Amino acid sequence: MYISSLENKKIKEYIKLKQKKYRDSYNKFIIEGEHLVEEALNSGFLLDVLVLDTYDYQIDFEKTYVTKEILKSLSDLDNHSLVIGICKKIDLTPSSQNKILILDGIQDPGNLGTIIRTSKAFGIDMIFLSEDTVDLYNSKVIRATQGIIFYLPIKRCDIIHEIKLIKHKGITIYGTDVINGIDIRNISNYQKDKFCIIMGNEGNGLRYQTKELVDKNLYINMDSTVESLNVSIATSIILYEFTRR
Amino acid sequence: MYISSLENKKIKEYIKLKQKKYRDSYNKFIIEGEHLVEEALNSGFLLDVLVLDTYDYQIDFEKTYVTKEILKSLSDLDNHSLVIGICKKIDLTPSSQNKILILDGIQDPGNLGTIIRTSKAFGIDMIFLSEDTVDLYNSKVIRATQGIIFYLPIKRCDIIHEIKLIKHKGITIYGTDVINGIDIRNISNYQKDKFCIIMGNEGNGLRYQTKELVDKNLYINMDSTVESLNVSIATSIILYEFTRR
Repeated sequence: MYISSLENKKIKEYIKLKQKKYRDSYNKFIIEGEHLVEEALNSGFLLDVLVLDTYDYQIDFEKTYVTKEILKSLSDLDNHSLVIGICKKIDLTPSSQNKILILDGIQDPGNLGTIIRTSKAFGIDMIFLSEDTVDLYNSKVIRATQGIIFYLPIKRCDIIHEIKLIKHKGITIYGTDVINGIDIRNISNYQKDKFCIIMGNEGNGLRYQTKELVDKNLYINMDSTVESLNVSIATSIILYEFTRR
Repeated sequence: MYISSLENKKIKEYIKLKQKKYRDSYNKFIIEGEHLVEEALNSGFLLDVLVLDTYDYQIDFEKTYVTKEILKSLSDLDNHSLVIGICKKIDLTPSSQNKILILDGIQDPGNLGTIIRTSKAFGIDMIFLSEDTVDLYNSKVIRATQGIIFYLPIKRCDIIHEIKLIKHKGITIYGTDVINGIDIRNISNYQKDKFCIIMGNEGNGLRYQTKELVDKNLYINMDSTVESLNVSIATSIILYEFTRR
């Protein structure tokens, strides 16, 4: 198929997907670049591929050839990609739920995407996002995940309710706090098989109601002149330590 | 002092500092927000403070009151701060040079800033930046450092020459590579007192000439389905491990 008009019905719908409200109502989102499109295809979430009409892109999927203007309208990069994909929203079932990460109000898309990428690297089974966490299908989040978004179960939910369910299963809930915290180097191996770690908002940390549900706090030993680490860095070091034996 | 005109000579000079070439020729840079201004004052690099004319900002430094329009012209945020500082470029002398980080072509400002912040947290004495690394005085870099930029010696230089000097002092040069790499958990304590770690560009890693000078490669043990970590995450985990005893 070849589409050259920005007024084409399908293209008009796709452009709307740059806004969260339309991603939510159509249950679709945009991805950019060949790597992400291939990951979407492999994981079964790809619905459509738009390719620049002059570009010979090899992929085992029906392509829609479009103009430069159309790709530019769909992209949020200064230099748009030659290949853009449309996906259905991801719905993965976790194979187990022993290693859980909960994000309580993360606002920066780069942080969320990076945390997702690292979580998969360090064996997290499932991520829960609080309702006020930045949209998972924001283009910057997706880019920062480097395609890992298609392989790790992630659910937006009422985290307070979810934490209570997890506690009920006997899984320890960890927050982060230097005061009365446990140095992460002192977490024993048997504690590393089942855990739920909650990481909070960039500026404010965990909200009060979440803090109330925490069983133990963790801290990362570091130079006393540095007040804190970026949340994606802190999360990554904690998750790394929980895989370290 | 009170300035209301964007045509004021000083303001015109300050606005130019949003561009790298003027930061380089005037040897100055812009910072935004009270926290950074206070860190700049404490560390002795603050030259001027511009404060919104209606804002009663308490700081032990001569203030220049300005209009909303002037602050907006100096800011690169959607919502400009009420306080903007002008600093002289930072020139710190390292107290020792046993724990060295070299960045070879990092392009993303957020990554550079975050790496600087984490480096201070994990005891790095000195950072060297390759000539093609993103500008240290880019506003996004400074924001991501959270003020740590004023306290950690950082030098842009010919890193090939620098690595040769460091090698000559008998310090081990570490790169990163899964193939033939050492799992970072196996670095022994005596190796953690003196080291030089080189981290490469987001897409391409170390350039060939840098790789040639590496003594040992490091890798981070992780899930085999994940190809790599974000460079600021990988750097942070490696530096964390080098402080871990």
